[in-house]
Amino acid sequence: MIVIHSPEHARHHSQCEVHNGALVPSFESPRRAEIVLEAVTAADLGPIRPPSADGLAPAAVLHRVDYLRFLETIWNDWQSAGRAGEAMAFSWCTHAFRPRQEPLGLDARLGYYSFCVDTTINAGTWGAARSAADVCRTAAAVVCDGAAGAFALCRPPGHHAGPGYFGGYCFLNNAGIAAQTLRDGGCARVAVLDVDFHHGNGTQDVFYQRGDVPFASLHGDPRHCFPFYSGHADETGAGPGAGATLNLPLPPGTTWPTYAEALDHALRWLGGFDPDALVVSLGLDTFAGDPISAFRLETDDFPRLGERLASLGKPTVFVLEGGYAAEDLGRNAVGVLGGFESASGSGGNR
Amino acid sequence: MIVIHSPEHARHHSQCEVHNGALVPSFESPRRAEIVLEAVTAADLGPIRPPSADGLAPAAVLHRVDYLRFLETIWNDWQSAGRAGEAMAFSWCTHAFRPRQEPLGLDARLGYYSFCVDTTINAGTWGAARSAADVCRTAAAVVCDGAAGAFALCRPPGHHAGPGYFGGYCFLNNAGIAAQTLRDGGCARVAVLDVDFHHGNGTQDVFYQRGDVPFASLHGDPRHCFPFYSGHADETGAGPGAGATLNLPLPPGTTWPTYAEALDHALRWLGGFDPDALVVSLGLDTFAGDPISAFRLETDDFPRLGERLASLGKPTVFVLEGGYAAEDLGRNAVGVLGGFESASGSGGNR
Repeated sequence: MIVIHSPEHARHHSQCEVHNGALVPSFESPRRAEIVLEAVTAADLGPIRPPSADGLAPAAVLHRVDYLRFLETIWNDWQSAGRAGEAMAFSWCTHAFRPRQEPLGLDARLGYYSFCVDTTINAGTWGAARSAADVCRTAAAVVCDGAAGAFALCRPPGHHAGPGYFGGYCFLNNAGIAAQTLRDGGCARVAVLDVDFHHGNGTQDVFYQRGDVPFASLHGDPRHCFPFYSGHADETGAGPGAGATLNLPLPPGTTWPTYAEALDHALRWLGGFDPDALVVSLGLDTFAGDPISAFRLETDDFPRLGERLASLGKPTVFVLEGGYAAEDLGRNAVGVLGGFESASGSGGNR
Repeated sequence: MIVIHSPEHARHHSQCEVHNGALVPSFESPRRAEIVLEAVTAADLGPIRPPSADGLAPAAVLHRVDYLRFLETIWNDWQSAGRAGEAMAFSWCTHAFRPRQEPLGLDARLGYYSFCVDTTINAGTWGAARSAADVCRTAAAVVCDGAAGAFALCRPPGHHAGPGYFGGYCFLNNAGIAAQTLRDGGCARVAVLDVDFHHGNGTQDVFYQRGDVPFASLHGDPRHCFPFYSGHADETGAGPGAGATLNLPLPPGTTWPTYAEALDHALRWLGGFDPDALVVSLGLDTFAGDPISAFRLETDDFPRLGERLASLGKPTVFVLEGGYAAEDLGRNAVGVLGGFESASGSGGNR
């Protein structure tokens, strides 16, 4: 399996996040991608290539132009205002406020374009987010060109980033960018499956009113799990996308048997759309050892996950999302990807 | 002027807030009220009495029952879940999410019922918030009974707390509780004037659709100043309250001449409703020395502010709101209240 990766990801390195009423080092760190890179290299999964395509074009289909402009400029604005530390919001435009046009001030913009306090912006954030978009567009292009599978080894992750907001460590919707690239490359329908522990609210939102990119997600029940206000079973799409969103919230403590059943359901449902390709939002925080998640998958379960994904029989782009048990990320990622390759017999695509 | 005060306020003592990407000691502290109490005592402003009325009855008119239940129970839930530190949200139900029913989980509720990360909840919060409500209802009752003025020396402050949300250090809408008490006591119309540096979004929201409590606010332009998404000039009320809200946003750096002009405009506008009484949300963070605000009023300006408030010629309840230059709070509070008494000749009400 071809792996696309850029060291540019390391330019985004948040120093801290609010957790349980304290500031702690960010759970989302460059080390995560480094460990996965080491593991896929050691496993000889396939050639590792740099991105060769500009991810901003598909990003501009999914994200609002004012939001992209915000991401591009906010760090300079923060610095120009003489602010210390990393750029972060402290007040949000919640459901309690009357909707308004974009506010103008620095903190007003930070709160308007985000939904949580875990995601800071610094000097390298925009460059790193763009490189992740490039990685995803390139990986999707590899699949468009005939590969059975490709792995977008990118960070910061993307599935919590929506049309006009960042949060949950995400800025640009990487999986959406891969799916949009596949659509632009000739796929009539592209299925997106999100197996991150947390609901992919951003991915859901960018495709919620589209029928050409059916989206299914298995995740911790949002009544108890971040991002809380998205991912409930009654969210099923709207407009031309009505019926093209499937949410399968699962209780904290879920283990493989229950997970596998929901996974099979999601794959059958996605298969019903007869997609030309599959994008997998590959979060590895379903692992029992994850420090901020609540499922109980074991390392042996991840190859099984990969095998089942192969059962859909579609060219597949894997996009790295969450997973915060950093030292276990590599073997679990290789577990999924190796399981996929074994089951699909796609090793020849190397 | 009769002063109503309860030492119960000190039960709420937030340890920290997020500020410029760091955790810092909370700007809103028990010391604030202690300094004001020392100053009004030293100035012999009038008798200092404890609250004698239950503020929850008027609070229940203004706040949603589910929100009051949340405030009452959240600390026990936080502790029962084995959480460390103070209860605080980290993810919010922003404008980007589809509105839903109340979510159930601990963090989901914290984010659903708040809009910013500056306000923590601990063991004494509910008791302190209730005592502030009691203070305000009692102060309003004193005015109902014929006093020309009363001062609700309370904290935590209240004007950012809305029908179903806390934030900006506020939990129950103290000024609203005073106004509701005056209404319930026979006043047909009660004017509320908010002179805190920050827009009183909560007070605006609890009365936005009511015509019996006209609300005017002078504050830092929300394009640049907290709470950002409320307090713009085009917010003027709705339904039966259409035209009964007046927002006068002023630029950072505003000094007394500009402020006084806006103040006179607000007082004329409120006077046009022929109110039977006035409630003043007395924030003192318009002071040039305030660490988190941006107006430039000087200590000499505060007696002038009090004189102008007296010019409306209505029985007046003063409710302590913000003001974070703690060491200057006392003399500035006494400045306003003394200026009011001198101008209204109401010293006899002592």
